[in-house]
Amino acid sequence: MPSATSILTLLTDFGERDHFVASMKGVILGINHQARIIDVSHHVTPHSIDEAAFLLNACYHYFPDGTVHVVVVDPGVGSSRRGLLVTTSRFFFIAPDNGVLTPVFENERSVEVRQIENRQFRLDSEGATFDGRDLFAPSAAWLTRGQTPGAYGRLISDYETRPIPKPEVREGILHGRVAHVDRFGNATTNVTLADVHSLQAVTKRTSISFAIGGVTINALKTHYEQGSKEQPEALINSNGYLEVFLKEASVAETFNLKAGETLEIQ
Amino acid sequence: MPSATSILTLLTDFGERDHFVASMKGVILGINHQARIIDVSHHVTPHSIDEAAFLLNACYHYFPDGTVHVVVVDPGVGSSRRGLLVTTSRFFFIAPDNGVLTPVFENERSVEVRQIENRQFRLDSEGATFDGRDLFAPSAAWLTRGQTPGAYGRLISDYETRPIPKPEVREGILHGRVAHVDRFGNATTNVTLADVHSLQAVTKRTSISFAIGGVTINALKTHYEQGSKEQPEALINSNGYLEVFLKEASVAETFNLKAGETLEIQ
Amino acid sequence: MPSATSILTLLTDFGERDHFVASMKGVILGINHQARIIDVSHHVTPHSIDEAAFLLNACYHYFPDGTVHVVVVDPGVGSSRRGLLVTTSRFFFIAPDNGVLTPVFENERSVEVRQIENRQFRLDSEGATFDGRDLFAPSAAWLTRGQTPGAYGRLISDYETRPIPKPEVREGILHGRVAHVDRFGNATTNVTLADVHSLQAVTKRTSISFAIGGVTINALKTHYEQGSKEQPEALINSNGYLEVFLKEASVAETFNLKAGETLEIQ
Repeated sequence: MPSATSILTLLTDFGERDHFVASMKGVILGINHQARIIDVSHHVTPHSIDEAAFLLNACYHYFPDGTVHVVVVDPGVGSSRRGLLVTTSRFFFIAPDNGVLTPVFENERSVEVRQIENRQFRLDSEGATFDGRDLFAPSAAWLTRGQTPGAYGRLISDYETRPIPKPEVREGILHGRVAHVDRFGNATTNVTLADVHSLQAVTKRTSISFAIGGVTINALKTHYEQGSKEQPEALINSNGYLEVFLKEASVAETFNLKAGETLEIQ
Repeated sequence: MPSATSILTLLTDFGERDHFVASMKGVILGINHQARIIDVSHHVTPHSIDEAAFLLNACYHYFPDGTVHVVVVDPGVGSSRRGLLVTTSRFFFIAPDNGVLTPVFENERSVEVRQIENRQFRLDSEGATFDGRDLFAPSAAWLTRGQTPGAYGRLISDYETRPIPKPEVREGILHGRVAHVDRFGNATTNVTLADVHSLQAVTKRTSISFAIGGVTINALKTHYEQGSKEQPEALINSNGYLEVFLKEASVAETFNLKAGETLEIQ
Repeated sequence: MPSATSILTLLTDFGERDHFVASMKGVILGINHQARIIDVSHHVTPHSIDEAAFLLNACYHYFPDGTVHVVVVDPGVGSSRRGLLVTTSRFFFIAPDNGVLTPVFENERSVEVRQIENRQFRLDSEGATFDGRDLFAPSAAWLTRGQTPGAYGRLISDYETRPIPKPEVREGILHGRVAHVDRFGNATTNVTLADVHSLQAVTKRTSISFAIGGVTINALKTHYEQGSKEQPEALINSNGYLEVFLKEASVAETFNLKAGETLEIQ
């Protein structure tokens, strides 16, 4: 288990227009004046646990050991859904028990999952609509002040997970899907170069083609400038995944690609 | 009066696309390298003093004692409207004298209001369109460097205030209004549970109904998951106010609710 | 040459919804726990090098000496375009070699431009689509740890620049253009008061008129409240440039003004 640093990250669906994020930051700084708070994103589609899980997975491991990652996409706030403190060999994670931490459970070693039960970490408030401020922010801030995970509550093993679709080979075809559409309109898939190579090992073919959104792509580029503004191309992006793109244009908008759109490779 | 910490918050209508906020932060860090700047929001509707006042009120008190809160929604920039430094028992506030600090004047104790007159706190610039950078940022930064409020200018008592509508009971009906619509489309009102209880004490009724936007709601829920995607429900939110919502949908969009929309409770 | 502080600024077209900016911040903090990261803007129009150059120019000089400014608007990522480290008498700049630093080359003294060649400053990754995270973030972070510019690579003089249009007097008329439209819909031009005075010195006229978007403006105001909601007015803004505006309304939207729109002054 790492020692917590004073670095916390926040990933929420709260947007940046309202008082929600600032309230969390105020609570954190009230507990630890030295806390250093980094916004991962507050623009998760409201209530989209899967989108938050994707974004978390794409960046959490770049932070230094001991970072406390706080994720609040929480449609079940105020219900009996639990709050979690998860420790791994490198990081701490604080989030509602709704599966948003599934990538952490899949990737990390030495994962310990605790239910946040100790009322000491909860702010009093009249209503029950804002655990981001009243439970998750203070829980995270106290970690950066040196609280030990054991103080939060018991270890549990029946926490929620959500399926993260993996590509599958069926009848010589690799079936993947769009995992995320980014600001540029590029469509990242859940397919890695290793998946493509495995397919080629099975089918004994060296040629390859990607079918997505009614379009067929026949080769991999290495960077965006090699693409065109009209004809989609594909490359392996810097997170290691196959990505479909147009050069300086939105392939997602032009070809109506959304997260979940299927991709066939042969 | 508190000692200023190195923590400053910024609440503006500048957006995050332009150079405005970064210019303020550059000026602040130029005066105090150790300043720690927290964004409350820069997405206030342009020129909306009332929206900024609402957002400030919803979160400023969560910050640690000695925080310097800077609010710049300033349609009168460059005119004779004054700059204010307000000290309370816990905080400092820097803002134009246009009523945006009304919640502070209403809530806080030991309020001292000064006009920022000392030219030492103003940056020279050719034009007069950006007091956020040229007056309010340096004034705030010098506070975090230990400047005393007395150095800024004289105490004044004729500062601007703006009416913040309070709910009223007329003929056995409590008249409230929507105070804010948040990112989720939830409509927060200006009605507290205490207001509802006061009404019930007067009318001797235990049943209650809320009429808003052509819809009637007959009971209070405690959390969002109890709601439905079509039928609005109400609850007391974590800021202590009655809030109208749909479960994972926007009640404001579906029923065309905006800040100022009236609510009748009986 | 300045000593690098621990203050870094980020200016990108990555938006704030995806994991891009957070990945950069994670990498920076992983190299320097004490780094203090300020967002200039992440809302540059995708691939718009000119817009990024405008925003950088508008604010970089307000930061303290030794600030490391990182600019990543990088349509050529993964191609042979180089990464640059630029040192001036006050600042460091890290950016792709695509002309985005042209304002720095035009404004600053003691400019030294180096190509970032040392592989030590590059993170390994499978793809080549994210030099913001893999090259520019670590390069900047190591500067704040005290690395000397010489360690990055050789001095070069064949770096890219982009033309920044300057106003011109032709046949007694000053031809300028809209440089930027801000969140309020105000249209900043590339014309200074000195340009106007030079024109008057040449034409011997004291009266002046501005023609833009089919509208004529006959005088300069000093602040926004003097304007009207329907009739555009002009003033010299706090960056020293002529700006066309409506009072609490968007002149750009109402009169369809965009960056590049021409302005004639006589």
